[in-house]
Amino acid sequence: MEIFHPAEILSRDEIAAVQTRRLARVVKRAARSPFYKAKLDEMGVDPESITSLDDLTRLPLTTKDDLRASYPFGMLADEHRELVRLHASSGTTGAPTVVYHTEKDLRTWADLMARCMHMAGMRKEDVFQNIAGYGLFTGGLGIHYGAERLGCLTIPAGAGNTARQIKLLRDFNVSAVHIIPSYALYLAGVVAEQGLDPRDLPPRIALIGAEPHSEEARRRIEEMLGLKAYNSYGLSEMNGPGVAFECEHQNGMHLWEDSYIAEILDPQTQEPVAEGEVGELVMTTLTREAMPLLRYRTRDLTRFLPGECACGRLHRRIDRITGRADDMLIIKGVNIYPMQIEKILLAVPEVAQNYQIVLEREGYIDQIKVRVEIKEEFFIEDMRVLGGIQKRIAGLLRNELLVTPRVELVEAKSLPTSEGKASRVVDLRETKD
Amino acid sequence: MEIFHPAEILSRDEIAAVQTRRLARVVKRAARSPFYKAKLDEMGVDPESITSLDDLTRLPLTTKDDLRASYPFGMLADEHRELVRLHASSGTTGAPTVVYHTEKDLRTWADLMARCMHMAGMRKEDVFQNIAGYGLFTGGLGIHYGAERLGCLTIPAGAGNTARQIKLLRDFNVSAVHIIPSYALYLAGVVAEQGLDPRDLPPRIALIGAEPHSEEARRRIEEMLGLKAYNSYGLSEMNGPGVAFECEHQNGMHLWEDSYIAEILDPQTQEPVAEGEVGELVMTTLTREAMPLLRYRTRDLTRFLPGECACGRLHRRIDRITGRADDMLIIKGVNIYPMQIEKILLAVPEVAQNYQIVLEREGYIDQIKVRVEIKEEFFIEDMRVLGGIQKRIAGLLRNELLVTPRVELVEAKSLPTSEGKASRVVDLRETKD
Ligand SMILES: [Zn+2]
Ligand SMILES: [Zn+2]
Repeated sequence: MEIFHPAEILSRDEIAAVQTRRLARVVKRAARSPFYKAKLDEMGVDPESITSLDDLTRLPLTTKDDLRASYPFGMLADEHRELVRLHASSGTTGAPTVVYHTEKDLRTWADLMARCMHMAGMRKEDVFQNIAGYGLFTGGLGIHYGAERLGCLTIPAGAGNTARQIKLLRDFNVSAVHIIPSYALYLAGVVAEQGLDPRDLPPRIALIGAEPHSEEARRRIEEMLGLKAYNSYGLSEMNGPGVAFECEHQNGMHLWEDSYIAEILDPQTQEPVAEGEVGELVMTTLTREAMPLLRYRTRDLTRFLPGECACGRLHRRIDRITGRADDMLIIKGVNIYPMQIEKILLAVPEVAQNYQIVLEREGYIDQIKVRVEIKEEFFIEDMRVLGGIQKRIAGLLRNELLVTPRVELVEAKSLPTSEGKASRVVDLRETKD
Repeated sequence: MEIFHPAEILSRDEIAAVQTRRLARVVKRAARSPFYKAKLDEMGVDPESITSLDDLTRLPLTTKDDLRASYPFGMLADEHRELVRLHASSGTTGAPTVVYHTEKDLRTWADLMARCMHMAGMRKEDVFQNIAGYGLFTGGLGIHYGAERLGCLTIPAGAGNTARQIKLLRDFNVSAVHIIPSYALYLAGVVAEQGLDPRDLPPRIALIGAEPHSEEARRRIEEMLGLKAYNSYGLSEMNGPGVAFECEHQNGMHLWEDSYIAEILDPQTQEPVAEGEVGELVMTTLTREAMPLLRYRTRDLTRFLPGECACGRLHRRIDRITGRADDMLIIKGVNIYPMQIEKILLAVPEVAQNYQIVLEREGYIDQIKVRVEIKEEFFIEDMRVLGGIQKRIAGLLRNELLVTPRVELVEAKSLPTSEGKASRVVDLRETKD
């Protein structure tokens, strides 16, 4: 196995040792910020007392609201004069969030990013087109610095202007691109409309991410563009891209555990979920100087994948993000995420685009009902056929959710949509009288 | 004097020595590209024979058309695998132009840019907001890398979204900005409309450039925003920003002669203009590895300013760009640039926004007529008053152009405009029969 950085092939013991050493250091560093100093004081935690990974649970959880409340300088753990970059959220509602970087932070970030790209098969010889907005959005500059660190000929193409993107891909024989999944499909469509085969475009690798997408969407991108598409995970609070990335086996994303400690917690109780269960990803930065974050609640739902990856890297893999913690529903004491339901429904061939989850209360018991649009060709009057589909869907959902929902089949295009998007969840449990 | 780089305080002899050494090297390097190899062969110039600055005139001139014709790889003087960046022109018409960079090229560019910013008074402690489009446009990433090289806390704000720009300026106590002149005036207007004083915004320094603007526009920016505005010059063919910049004396832009050889040539004859005369700026890159350019015709018109700058730096200063060589008119054997006429007219208080230059032929003699809109309050029927204005304008133009134009006064808003912009030059000399 070719590696970009020695940390890729650490053993589990070595990872634990690095994490222990860096955790102790990062907590002391975090304690220099007004926010964490107050928080640790209030909890009676002496930063010097953090000496093992078991001490992690003694540390405070950090939320996006904490970031907002401490805007603009409350999370800063370093001298102002050492800072060389900040990224801020667009903050359309409420206070924005901001993340600061020292020069060393930027170098570390670029190294992590280059490590990801190399793991996905990119090399110095690649010509790389970065189809992403630059500026305050971390997906532009973050990926850009990684590609230059790796030594690729980097084209800072930015977002939009599809005709020009296609021209650049062709003229410079671009071998690797960064592109968001929906735009990849759109771009392939534009080429096809010109009567050309998008598979003839030169790239052999696409880095995709930044928006949730299914395994099916990835395969479609791969088939339409004739390349390998690698899923990535990152969020601006953890720098941006470069947190976790797929290797050539494309079976989950290796999360770089020498740089982050990842926990998966129940979003309600903040207790660890059982091994392999879905929960909220909670992360601690291990190397950031300017603005360390302790146990940051990402709100992103995922799980650790079991077993070891065939590539030999022992950094644990997370599954693709299956939704946001804020979307979680509790039915009969069971946590249910709409994305779980969607995943099941979209794998059923008879199901059309749209569905709706309806929560009802009967007496004191919550009930979940799933209304599913069925494609026109299947929606026939023969009750036996429809009954069979209904029963099959109910069974699949029960196996996934461990709760038996009612399933109601409806005609295609009969469910309400708002601005083209379906209103997925309707909660009728609250009786306002 | 504080300096960022020792090259800033080279003596004229030292500059000549550096230029001689680097010219010899860069010509050998350029000869590795298909374009220059063919060109030098064709002219019978042996790269090894370039040993002094006097040999410069034996080298070929390079034009934008040459760049276009050799798109995409013809100007490349380096191995593909050594390249880490390319910038391409938007190329709305015809083939685009492209400039490649090695890692060392990017470092050199960032160093030059940091040198410029430091010369304009920026320091590591500054918080710097880069209000510029990123991506393929060199003004974004070029300035960005310079600011990070200098060690400023850099905010990659990008272009647009004025409300957000203002919020960032305030929230992070931004002390220096990069902004295009027209947008600086617009932003000040937005703040004023909110009933606030734009002078209360935190920045003390603005780097302005990327679009031609007058000394008056600079002073207006300085007064409205309560800061010092420094003019800059660059073009993507010479990397982008970082070619020439004003020092604290704001009296022309020091052009970094250790990195570029600058000539000012007559755009028609390609002979050097007389000392201090306006002509086309022609530049040779001295340090670029991936894509050296020899005697590149920028089409930009300027002149070397006489005398030494009070700051002590001996790199020669160029005047603000007064137009494009393509705009040059030849009347009675004299080179005339529309910008010269505009400069005179806009300094006359009675003149309104618009004017028009009409070229006519009488027999075999070309004539120039200038039609000038006069502000409503001055456009009265008293012929003596109008006659006085007319005579005054004609005198001012004759002194500047050394040709006597006819001057015709017209009412404000009576001249044709297209898409809000005036059609400045109307050429009636070509008789198509
Ligand atoms: Zn793997
Ligand atoms: Zn000076």
